[in-house]
Amino acid sequence: MTAPAFERVLRVPFSACDPAGIMFFPQVFLLFQNHVEDWITDALGVPYADLLGPRRVGLPSVRWETDFRAISRMGDAIVIRLHVERLGEKSLTLRFAIAGDDGVRVEARQVIVCTSLETHRSMPFPDDLRAAITRFQESAA
Amino acid sequence: MTAPAFERVLRVPFSACDPAGIMFFPQVFLLFQNHVEDWITDALGVPYADLLGPRRVGLPSVRWETDFRAISRMGDAIVIRLHVERLGEKSLTLRFAIAGDDGVRVEARQVIVCTSLETHRSMPFPDDLRAAITRFQESAA
Amino acid sequence: MTAPAFERVLRVPFSACDPAGIMFFPQVFLLFQNHVEDWITDALGVPYADLLGPRRVGLPSVRWETDFRAISRMGDAIVIRLHVERLGEKSLTLRFAIAGDDGVRVEARQVIVCTSLETHRSMPFPDDLRAAITRFQESAA
Amino acid sequence: MTAPAFERVLRVPFSACDPAGIMFFPQVFLLFQNHVEDWITDALGVPYADLLGPRRVGLPSVRWETDFRAISRMGDAIVIRLHVERLGEKSLTLRFAIAGDDGVRVEARQVIVCTSLETHRSMPFPDDLRAAITRFQESAA
Repeated sequence: MTAPAFERVLRVPFSACDPAGIMFFPQVFLLFQNHVEDWITDALGVPYADLLGPRRVGLPSVRWETDFRAISRMGDAIVIRLHVERLGEKSLTLRFAIAGDDGVRVEARQVIVCTSLETHRSMPFPDDLRAAITRFQESAA
Repeated sequence: MTAPAFERVLRVPFSACDPAGIMFFPQVFLLFQNHVEDWITDALGVPYADLLGPRRVGLPSVRWETDFRAISRMGDAIVIRLHVERLGEKSLTLRFAIAGDDGVRVEARQVIVCTSLETHRSMPFPDDLRAAITRFQESAA
Repeated sequence: MTAPAFERVLRVPFSACDPAGIMFFPQVFLLFQNHVEDWITDALGVPYADLLGPRRVGLPSVRWETDFRAISRMGDAIVIRLHVERLGEKSLTLRFAIAGDDGVRVEARQVIVCTSLETHRSMPFPDDLRAAITRFQESAA
Repeated sequence: MTAPAFERVLRVPFSACDPAGIMFFPQVFLLFQNHVEDWITDALGVPYADLLGPRRVGLPSVRWETDFRAISRMGDAIVIRLHVERLGEKSLTLRFAIAGDDGVRVEARQVIVCTSLETHRSMPFPDDLRAAITRFQESAA
């Protein structure tokens, strides 16, 4: 049994590549960020812009561990995949993989903490977000 | 009669917004760049990564004129549209619009020059790219 | 007589360059943005972060005109220069130049409007910012 | 005794901050990248642009571990510090810290591998770069 995953296929754009013609690592982190945003909005059904905007809920990273195993070149088709490793009261651990036609190229683990954007202190996840993450974890793979 | 346009719908991501919660203008230029890349690859059928990579054809901007008429906020659905204003032997003028539910928010005009990435000198567009742009201009709107 | 200018010397970083090894144009706009921020904070003495943060004063671009005359390569030493073209009640027009050892490479003109970040409507510049811009314009070159 | 460190003081720019008004984590990685480039060029005396350009030596990341302990806000003065943890034949481990007036805010560990940009395969560090890193490690703190 595999954990439910949220994935997207995309093409490595020119703008994400460095003078060596390969995907620039800060752009990989940007890709992960955008993927989390799409997951929360599109898969969980909780609009990320509402959370971070009017609802004043922050979701900052407190830890990233990332292994870059192979390069991606401009124009490559890649798949980016996310699954939930652990949902705590105030923190969430996500796993990421980026794969190309040669297999997995990047693997990462992000720990997110839920915060109030008024105080920047940690707080429990809002009920709707927690429920949606739980449903996602329980969905068929 | 309208000029044929290439358009995409997208949602303004968190990562494109500034501390004022609105789309940051350098990110608008990045959006235009990615849109040109998608147009050339997907609509014209000439892989942009091949052009800029192995074929060593550069497509740098020599002029941008951009009017920002209204802001876009994080999470907004926007449409980005491109059409060809003029195709010269060695240069190409494109027009862009970004629209939201309140109408056009950004309008821009870009002049691109075709160059050799060996010499960074201007040169005529490769035949396949020129033919594809011409077909695009002649396609039904 | 030359208009007073605010300038900085910098080296084109790897991170600002594209797979062609030259400065990527959205990065040029980012450079202009950072230069305006440094000018306001360091030369005018009005902390930009206070303006855009607690003071809720926005300074969005409403127009950019930019000519790219020559490329900059990774590692090049460049000078970025800003001067004031016109200070209106609610708008400010700035001129920029980026020069390398071969002369001017990029020229640009930005029109900024002063807004309230509560309403995103235009408003007169705050007195301290207006006074500081006026002093800058009148300073010896 | 402390390991020799390369450090710079900087102000968190508007452009590095997100809609929550705090430094956006992909921008932290960009800062580390720029810091490595400055260290190699300015402290080691080996021009980074030559290495990655004409000399075709790549220095990609193979691993990043990063802990974000406290936020940085727009306008904050921060110090970024780098030291060498280990220099191997073909790999280099660096440690980073970003500190503000409240102490260390971000800590990171990067493993870089030396590659040929022709083949993207690992190779020993060039002699001048290895010698310069060794001298840096042996310099008085």
